[in-house]
Amino acid sequence: MPQFEITHESPSFWRVAFDNPPVNVFGGAAIIELRALLDAAENDPELTVIVFESANPDYFIAHWDLTDDLARLADEPPPVTGQQPFVDMLIRLSKLSVLTISKLRGRARGAGSEFLLATDIRFASRERTLIGQFEMGAGSVPPGGGAPARLPRLVGRGRALEILVGAQDFDGDLAERYGYVNRAVPDADLDAFVTAFATRVSAFDRSSVAELKSWVDAITLPDNGEFPQQAAAFAAHLGGPRYQSWAAHAFEAGLQQPGDLEERLGARSVEF
Amino acid sequence: MPQFEITHESPSFWRVAFDNPPVNVFGGAAIIELRALLDAAENDPELTVIVFESANPDYFIAHWDLTDDLARLADEPPPVTGQQPFVDMLIRLSKLSVLTISKLRGRARGAGSEFLLATDIRFASRERTLIGQFEMGAGSVPPGGGAPARLPRLVGRGRALEILVGAQDFDGDLAERYGYVNRAVPDADLDAFVTAFATRVSAFDRSSVAELKSWVDAITLPDNGEFPQQAAAFAAHLGGPRYQSWAAHAFEAGLQQPGDLEERLGARSVEF
Amino acid sequence: MPQFEITHESPSFWRVAFDNPPVNVFGGAAIIELRALLDAAENDPELTVIVFESANPDYFIAHWDLTDDLARLADEPPPVTGQQPFVDMLIRLSKLSVLTISKLRGRARGAGSEFLLATDIRFASRERTLIGQFEMGAGSVPPGGGAPARLPRLVGRGRALEILVGAQDFDGDLAERYGYVNRAVPDADLDAFVTAFATRVSAFDRSSVAELKSWVDAITLPDNGEFPQQAAAFAAHLGGPRYQSWAAHAFEAGLQQPGDLEERLGARSVEF
Repeated sequence: MPQFEITHESPSFWRVAFDNPPVNVFGGAAIIELRALLDAAENDPELTVIVFESANPDYFIAHWDLTDDLARLADEPPPVTGQQPFVDMLIRLSKLSVLTISKLRGRARGAGSEFLLATDIRFASRERTLIGQFEMGAGSVPPGGGAPARLPRLVGRGRALEILVGAQDFDGDLAERYGYVNRAVPDADLDAFVTAFATRVSAFDRSSVAELKSWVDAITLPDNGEFPQQAAAFAAHLGGPRYQSWAAHAFEAGLQQPGDLEERLGARSVEF
Repeated sequence: MPQFEITHESPSFWRVAFDNPPVNVFGGAAIIELRALLDAAENDPELTVIVFESANPDYFIAHWDLTDDLARLADEPPPVTGQQPFVDMLIRLSKLSVLTISKLRGRARGAGSEFLLATDIRFASRERTLIGQFEMGAGSVPPGGGAPARLPRLVGRGRALEILVGAQDFDGDLAERYGYVNRAVPDADLDAFVTAFATRVSAFDRSSVAELKSWVDAITLPDNGEFPQQAAAFAAHLGGPRYQSWAAHAFEAGLQQPGDLEERLGARSVEF
Repeated sequence: MPQFEITHESPSFWRVAFDNPPVNVFGGAAIIELRALLDAAENDPELTVIVFESANPDYFIAHWDLTDDLARLADEPPPVTGQQPFVDMLIRLSKLSVLTISKLRGRARGAGSEFLLATDIRFASRERTLIGQFEMGAGSVPPGGGAPARLPRLVGRGRALEILVGAQDFDGDLAERYGYVNRAVPDADLDAFVTAFATRVSAFDRSSVAELKSWVDAITLPDNGEFPQQAAAFAAHLGGPRYQSWAAHAFEAGLQQPGDLEERLGARSVEF
């Protein structure tokens, strides 16, 4: 059962909905599917724009699936960039020659926020967005999927340190004021707004979009050399006693299940 | 008949109004005049600040004059930076040792936005501003006068890609929220606000302003090596069939003439 | 009599209040105390977060003590970075392995603003903040304590040039819109807000905070090579006739004393 449903709105506009019940955690299966999606997108001569959204209005991507040891990736081809698999996929996503737009409704924490940061444009529901890097609240784990490299370039040093070290949730309005998302749109208007924007871009020439993106990529994307130490530190922390103790208590309290803990994870993570 | 009217508010404060009826398109004649203005400004021992404004409250600079093949530049000295003439002028403008302020009222699209981005400070009318890079809407032409280099450094990757690829108009309020302009000021207050700010700066020592600007320039201006490929791509696209077809239809529909098409060019460009 | 009062809220959370009556000017004595504080913080195995605040609700740090020739530093060890003493202290502050938060209430101009910019996070009173780089208003002196290096990276070229060259005061709301502070919080809520944030961070592991900060530091802090010429220019300007004349008149009018001049220094500095 695939986790991403691809709707071809037109030959040049794909809509991709993430659906991994009950709360849209993101793990190895999602990476495998997105690798195929990225290959297809890169090689499609007509595609210009992809909108990423969620089938679950409460969770865009809850966070990394903390039960997933990535074992299923063992039989897959190695990451093309030589980086850790999640980082590898995000690097490829960020450099895709088509424009990628995240339509953010619901929660996007940890890897969910890092996914958003690797897409080109983020439009968020003003009322229904909660975005953040909760990892430090989960046993003092520094984020390892690119946020420490991507956020400072997007929102500046002060706000990036607040988001990364403070590990709190940001609503749509504050996320817009910080530049974490492009803008927050009233929830009732969000679908139509994003569809209109993507439809407009889908009429443009693919190679012009690619050309323009390549110039912007060259001056805005992190240096690939920043990622490995961050990904390695993340893995080391996940194997350590602080996180292990946190996870034992958090899973017992309902982590990765519908309910209050996932709903308010930014605030509640520090309970354990 | 000159296109720029220079008012010497004082020996240290010049006000420069652009006036090229009917809609303030910008072309080779403007470049020639601005070259002379830049020479004069650089060599004036008393000048500290220049305010750029428009004689036309509806158009700051509509966009590049798409009927201008720059033939008149053939008899002029070559660009001092060795870059394409418009880019050359903007590089010199951005590095001028005096402070430059754009007082933005009306529309500024394409080259008009790029002119604004090459000045130091942008104060915009809250009610009467429309700013954008409409080029992708005009036959999928990536902007070539520096916007892909200057915008990401000013507003960040996400918002820059939205502005550049989406090719829509931004009003004063949204332009301020994105950091595209310094701030949006109520239209009724804009003239007094800008005059007060410039008058204040005009009392400061020219060499102190130059010293301060040189430090900021060194860490904020694009690398000159970014511009040539963007300018060359722009020229190539203008010679291609997509743009040529767009231009034929757009001129027929009223391009560069007063009326609805120029008024709503961000929205209407994609009709052709 | 020390100028900084250190309250150990817990082993991992220090609150440091600046108190140098009557208006909290900042000079050599403050540098000597902060050197010791930085040494202690760097070597404390439990400390995670420091909040800097002021004992005076009207002045966070008024500005550099313009009567201080730094003579008392002659008997102290030389700056560890080899930079000018104030710049040296700020470099060390910015790279401290613990998270530093400024709780800004009252005025912070010149060196006060530069102190804030060297801490990691700035939370400001919405109603009681006035922040700015007033130096150009004081005899056309370009700021020399790091603002020309730190501000453009935080708020972008346009807004940085406005702040630095315009030399005006910014209130809490505008400082937030510009990204000069992380956010402006209603004054009645500021103390509880900052304490809650710092308490949260104080529960996190010190080495995780240090690890995360090191990654962000590497891509956001100025190159140390930018500071010396700025500090040297500042010193040269302070020895010159324009500043000397300004200072003579300004001290006569009440500089560094309670009253209207210090209260509205951003506006009134240009009178002299």
